[in-house]
Amino acid sequence: MKKLITSDKNQTIKDIIKLKQKKEREKLGKFYIEGERIIDEIPDSVNIEMIVFSEKFYNEINQKDKYKNIQSLVVSDSVFKKISDTINPQGIMAICNIPKNCIEDIKITSNNFFVILDRICDPGNMGTIIRTAEALGVDTIFLSKGCVDLYNDKVIRATMGSIFHIKVIEQCDLLSLIDYLKDNKVKIVCTHLEGKKAPYNIDFKKSIGILIGNEANGVLDEYKEKSDELVKIPMVGNVESMNASISSAIIFYEVLSQRLNK
Amino acid sequence: MKKLITSDKNQTIKDIIKLKQKKEREKLGKFYIEGERIIDEIPDSVNIEMIVFSEKFYNEINQKDKYKNIQSLVVSDSVFKKISDTINPQGIMAICNIPKNCIEDIKITSNNFFVILDRICDPGNMGTIIRTAEALGVDTIFLSKGCVDLYNDKVIRATMGSIFHIKVIEQCDLLSLIDYLKDNKVKIVCTHLEGKKAPYNIDFKKSIGILIGNEANGVLDEYKEKSDELVKIPMVGNVESMNASISSAIIFYEVLSQRLNK
Repeated sequence: MKKLITSDKNQTIKDIIKLKQKKEREKLGKFYIEGERIIDEIPDSVNIEMIVFSEKFYNEINQKDKYKNIQSLVVSDSVFKKISDTINPQGIMAICNIPKNCIEDIKITSNNFFVILDRICDPGNMGTIIRTAEALGVDTIFLSKGCVDLYNDKVIRATMGSIFHIKVIEQCDLLSLIDYLKDNKVKIVCTHLEGKKAPYNIDFKKSIGILIGNEANGVLDEYKEKSDELVKIPMVGNVESMNASISSAIIFYEVLSQRLNK
Repeated sequence: MKKLITSDKNQTIKDIIKLKQKKEREKLGKFYIEGERIIDEIPDSVNIEMIVFSEKFYNEINQKDKYKNIQSLVVSDSVFKKISDTINPQGIMAICNIPKNCIEDIKITSNNFFVILDRICDPGNMGTIIRTAEALGVDTIFLSKGCVDLYNDKVIRATMGSIFHIKVIEQCDLLSLIDYLKDNKVKIVCTHLEGKKAPYNIDFKKSIGILIGNEANGVLDEYKEKSDELVKIPMVGNVESMNASISSAIIFYEVLSQRLNK
């Protein structure tokens, strides 16, 4: 058995606890995720720096081999509870390096499917949008400054692993991004309550960027004005707006169905 | 100023606290909702038995007239915190009678849009499905036994008021409901991972009932077998399934768009 860490005064433990803060994650370029299932989904392109096991989990693993090439640590169950974000942690955590994606690496094709999120604040919405985006064929997601941090544990959990399967580029300057995409013949379609066109009246077959705004305030006017089209989901009830993850999913579905079907 | 209740030993307060439990809500036929905005949306068809104010909220209301025809109660802020489900309650709660909707009251037309939920367990999903259903033109929602209670405070909050605008019938026996609807020429379309048709390949223009299953286990086989069609949303990523509220929204959108557009 490995050496057991039983104190939260241990320097490595203190460093892990720091990663609960966005500022520290950014400074150190690291984040952590919990749970065997999602850890098994980490692709080779993401570097796992360390696996942390609770004592109980470590003693119960059948295939210890699975993690044999990664530096690992076993901590007492009470220390694990302190580093975990959940009330009943499973007992396994991976410390990973934040992948470095940048706009320059994006390949422009004739049928890109980009999504641009402007200040999405709710972690559940962010995670669900990423999960749905993967399912419905989005290439790349661009996040504005002011979006909830991608490596927030609630976001990661809500993505159900999709965070590792789709390219997400954070901290984008949306004005210059929109200009860049338009220069490359990507049509920018902005979801907006002032939109006059329903999704099924917009042609999504060529390269597009779908712009989705903040839950309470929508898309900033300066981005709306640069957009090629405004889209609004038809609504018949006594409802003013939809949840951001719901309206995103509907637009993504319309894009995919036009591309598969028509 | 009204008489102020300052003790949670008061019988009325004890009765309100009981309503936190589903069993008691069912027994007494009552539920409560919190927040001025949603209370303002309660239609005349729902009987409000009493409004409860916190002392602080009561002293700050401008239009006390708004509630003048309803029995009301002012309680100390600390008592209000005890009856409330939120950490920072606004300070207004309505105790309402549970509306009695029954299958026999449903009007069958040539273009009904029914939704049937089989054991949806997550309150956020249930509330979001109800909200989206209203926005996208659903007539009536039928809930199986085993669905999360409609009058759970998290469900009510997630509906954003839609719970008062759309007919929801609880505790349905789905086998007999499906038979009844089929006898009345309503096509039953079941969302299912074994479905071979995409939503855009199904004709939703005539009367339909969309059957949506439990988050983990989907629709029970006995309901699936009675269905006229199985539908599956096309997915291209490395994703096994979608969130129930997301897939519901996509199907509802397809129905509405066929009816508005084609």
